[in-house]
Amino acid sequence: MSSYQVPPLARLIEQFERLPGIGRKTAQRLAFFVLDLPPGEAEQFAAAILEARQTIHCCSICQDLTDGDVCAICAASERDRATICVVEDPRDVAAIERTREYNGLYHVLHGVISPMDGVGPDQLRVKELLARLSNEAVEEVIMATNPTVEGEATALYLARLIAPLGVRVTRLAYGIPVGGDLEYADDVTLSRALEGRSELS
Amino acid sequence: MSSYQVPPLARLIEQFERLPGIGRKTAQRLAFFVLDLPPGEAEQFAAAILEARQTIHCCSICQDLTDGDVCAICAASERDRATICVVEDPRDVAAIERTREYNGLYHVLHGVISPMDGVGPDQLRVKELLARLSNEAVEEVIMATNPTVEGEATALYLARLIAPLGVRVTRLAYGIPVGGDLEYADDVTLSRALEGRSELS
Repeated sequence: MSSYQVPPLARLIEQFERLPGIGRKTAQRLAFFVLDLPPGEAEQFAAAILEARQTIHCCSICQDLTDGDVCAICAASERDRATICVVEDPRDVAAIERTREYNGLYHVLHGVISPMDGVGPDQLRVKELLARLSNEAVEEVIMATNPTVEGEATALYLARLIAPLGVRVTRLAYGIPVGGDLEYADDVTLSRALEGRSELS
Repeated sequence: MSSYQVPPLARLIEQFERLPGIGRKTAQRLAFFVLDLPPGEAEQFAAAILEARQTIHCCSICQDLTDGDVCAICAASERDRATICVVEDPRDVAAIERTREYNGLYHVLHGVISPMDGVGPDQLRVKELLARLSNEAVEEVIMATNPTVEGEATALYLARLIAPLGVRVTRLAYGIPVGGDLEYADDVTLSRALEGRSELS
């Protein structure tokens, strides 16, 4: 029996192995790293896990993650409250914020409609979106779900639900990625780029 | 401000980012994974870290990691107590145990002599090894430090310390790895393989 089989170490390796993208060897390396940390630092790691789980929840308006009642974006007075960008995941909010191009609010669905995985509109934050559209003066909803079959279907489904409310619904542009190479673009992307061509002014 | 900047989440991402081989993106992915775990499982993860740190220490005989006073190998009555295999790291014990070829005891140095990194014999578990050799009926010490400059130097240093005690000191064989290709073996390995050639019987 080697040290890997010492029960507390085996349990720690097992916990690391459950993380996405972490295999057996990496889990062992991480567990040994944690054992070698200076006094107090492993405790800080454990405390960070517990604190994040206990204090982070969804913003009561946009459903993004926050540790307060309302997230920093929904609380910011300088944001344009007439535009809502609908995304699948909190990470997508971070990606769009990084562009510094968008000044509206967000709505995080926490998933996409996917009958294969048993996810219907009721498992997503769709009710909350419709409530916002009814109660607030929203002029435009930008669908920014991923360009996948499920992302597309979810955007179309929501667009139909929103249409009767008289709110403009738009979709992120499809096209060739900046810095990409036409030769390597797939057919669907290329035909969408052709469809969406714009005037060179 | 996106959810990445929510302080408890930012702290959790930072903790993951300190782990070896984990970059910013992976740290974010792991932090979100932990937030999405079913209730109680993040707590188990935190508890595994604390438990491992609190209960794991070095075996009082061989210095391998254990949660008891003496590790399972040192406590096993069927192991050959006249042979000690000296390794750098607890992971090396696990590697040799996997071969199921070795039935002696171990001694874990917890490092190698490396003047560049300020590691001398006093930072290693050398005293403990010498004490074992003086107090117990050891016949052979097998040096199984890594085939690096530091590993070699440490093995030679220990061999000289041990010589006066009248204990046989051996070294793991060097040679071409099984399944390897002569063409791709480096010169040093190949010349060591020639030196160490044995009779085909």
